[in-house]
Amino acid sequence: MRDTADLENNGTVLRIALPDGGSARFHAIWLRDNALDPETRDPGNGQRLVTLADIPANTTMSDATTVGEGVSVTFQPERKTVVYPVDWLARHAYDRDLATRQQGWVRDGVSVWDASNGQITRQPLHDLQNDPGALAGWLAAASEFGFAIATEGPVASGALLDVVKLFGFVRETNYGTWFEVRTEVNPTNLAYTGLGLQGHTDNPYRDPVPTLQLLYCLENSAEGGDSILVDGFRVAQALRDENPDGFALLTQYCARFEYAGSEGVCLRARKPMIELTPDGELVAIRFNNRSSAPIVDVPFDKMEAYYAAYRRFGELVDDASMEVAFKMVPGECVLFDNTRLLHARHGYSGEGSRWLQGCYADKDGLLSTLAAATYQSKGAAE
Amino acid sequence: MRDTADLENNGTVLRIALPDGGSARFHAIWLRDNALDPETRDPGNGQRLVTLADIPANTTMSDATTVGEGVSVTFQPERKTVVYPVDWLARHAYDRDLATRQQGWVRDGVSVWDASNGQITRQPLHDLQNDPGALAGWLAAASEFGFAIATEGPVASGALLDVVKLFGFVRETNYGTWFEVRTEVNPTNLAYTGLGLQGHTDNPYRDPVPTLQLLYCLENSAEGGDSILVDGFRVAQALRDENPDGFALLTQYCARFEYAGSEGVCLRARKPMIELTPDGELVAIRFNNRSSAPIVDVPFDKMEAYYAAYRRFGELVDDASMEVAFKMVPGECVLFDNTRLLHARHGYSGEGSRWLQGCYADKDGLLSTLAAATYQSKGAAE
Repeated sequence: MRDTADLENNGTVLRIALPDGGSARFHAIWLRDNALDPETRDPGNGQRLVTLADIPANTTMSDATTVGEGVSVTFQPERKTVVYPVDWLARHAYDRDLATRQQGWVRDGVSVWDASNGQITRQPLHDLQNDPGALAGWLAAASEFGFAIATEGPVASGALLDVVKLFGFVRETNYGTWFEVRTEVNPTNLAYTGLGLQGHTDNPYRDPVPTLQLLYCLENSAEGGDSILVDGFRVAQALRDENPDGFALLTQYCARFEYAGSEGVCLRARKPMIELTPDGELVAIRFNNRSSAPIVDVPFDKMEAYYAAYRRFGELVDDASMEVAFKMVPGECVLFDNTRLLHARHGYSGEGSRWLQGCYADKDGLLSTLAAATYQSKGAAE
Repeated sequence: MRDTADLENNGTVLRIALPDGGSARFHAIWLRDNALDPETRDPGNGQRLVTLADIPANTTMSDATTVGEGVSVTFQPERKTVVYPVDWLARHAYDRDLATRQQGWVRDGVSVWDASNGQITRQPLHDLQNDPGALAGWLAAASEFGFAIATEGPVASGALLDVVKLFGFVRETNYGTWFEVRTEVNPTNLAYTGLGLQGHTDNPYRDPVPTLQLLYCLENSAEGGDSILVDGFRVAQALRDENPDGFALLTQYCARFEYAGSEGVCLRARKPMIELTPDGELVAIRFNNRSSAPIVDVPFDKMEAYYAAYRRFGELVDDASMEVAFKMVPGECVLFDNTRLLHARHGYSGEGSRWLQGCYADKDGLLSTLAAATYQSKGAAE
């Protein structure tokens, strides 16, 4: 098969030999739509210049031949010849078995973790600001593990915005550009201050949910008050592995979330606690006991099993075997993926104070900055 | 059945008579989790104070009696008695037939439209800024139809931010807080200036996608250049009704989108063109020929049918029977739902200039402002 390009099915299908063995088929309409010539795609910005309406519905191929490292294809009725690099075709081959993916898969580059293998990536803010390689590595960790910590930053109100500037933009909300997470420990008021918080994602009642959160430490002299992170994707996969039906219920039915605690604010969302793409990729976890509204989209005869799965998910979230814990010191900032990680706080008490500032941002900027850095470091070969 | 509250299934299920006839069942664990007492929910902000771990897994009900307009329920083993208003129970009843919903349903309050019934809501910016009732009506139209126009605003750069302030916050991106949509018509360069743009959603390569877009007109003296909006939900339902299998393909498989046209920017997303919740609600349309990347997540044997559905979707988008068209005048701003509406531009030519400023924002703020206004106008009875 090597070095061959054959037409099948009356010119509607091209079959080529792949560099690593085997072969892959491509449809005429797919190839024509994805043609790489400058009349189809702008060589500068890569954007497509035609719509499907510009491409005849009866498009077929009348000729296909190998030309060096490429395949030359002639389309009819346009009489248009386009060359596709074999490497490009191999990277975009869709003639493969997708059915083996298990529901709840994660995309390439994502590593799920628990207490046994969770690792904390720390990098001084100064290095992130001045060393593109350090920044790329730190963003790669945030993308792979869902979080990373910037250290040795200024102990100054608003300094968290310097961290956001490394990769993107603040998502301003009704809570402001940033918000205060400040609890003064007061012995007369221990009932309020000693409480831990169960692992949760923020703002599940908001659609779109903020996809990143930053928490920047300005004071942390109280006893306890460790920060805890849990990989919600790990929790979801653990639930799936021990109770596939329960996992399916949390993915197939929507929960409801609501927040109306402030004047002029009434936020509501209807989303599953475990969100998958239609083909089963884990894309988001929403879990927050405080803002869960009554669940009314689960059929009556499935509600008890749904609640059992919901309970078990929470037990896994609370399980110390799932968590990474660390105590933040002033000048540190943790950045985490609010669509994947749950964050919690151990209870704290005694004298001292704890003051964090938080803000939201979005993953598009982070992943774009990372991808552009990776692309640039690979050079023009890609 | 009226005025009755009965326990079934060994105290795991409560059945009540509904005010409008019939009955509804509720599970003990659901009722306990959603208890309205001040130990379970904060009376101030409405947030839940307990987690499922605080509620015994073997929760049952030992007693249920009607008390005025409420039902009093006693939970075991906690020996906890909670009263639920019958109205509240009726509003949150989940013991109903959900199976009759057709894939591609839209939520209450959304009205899909085409050229035959699309209506344009216009309101002077001054009224929106000073009359809460006018603002609520305008936001309600934006929520129901996916767009609304503010008129008679200042002809000043950056004035679009005044419109955003009515309901929420700008979503800043790599394109800035806002961006320029400016094309000077120059007869030496007609090839670039006379082009229309196919209906599309913006930034499908961004995740999360900006859920709202604003386009504010500062100059529009060129011939033509009408703005066009198409209800993507209407297009999706039209496709569903004529080709259910094609509709299913566009919902069940992910497309890919990419933009890497600027230095340091490389945005990619993998999402279906027609996004449904797991229970079939239409939640987002992504359609943009310019930034569509090769589709590689559709199985080989479904690719031709996928492309046929994709082509038909585009034909419907291009069909004049789907569109609402209007020519913006300086000082006007159109706000539209970028997860639902497609926007397009008719070609234009001749002397004159066209200058718009655009920005992105999010629906959470819009829907929250609307819901809070609606709630307040209803008063405390709700």
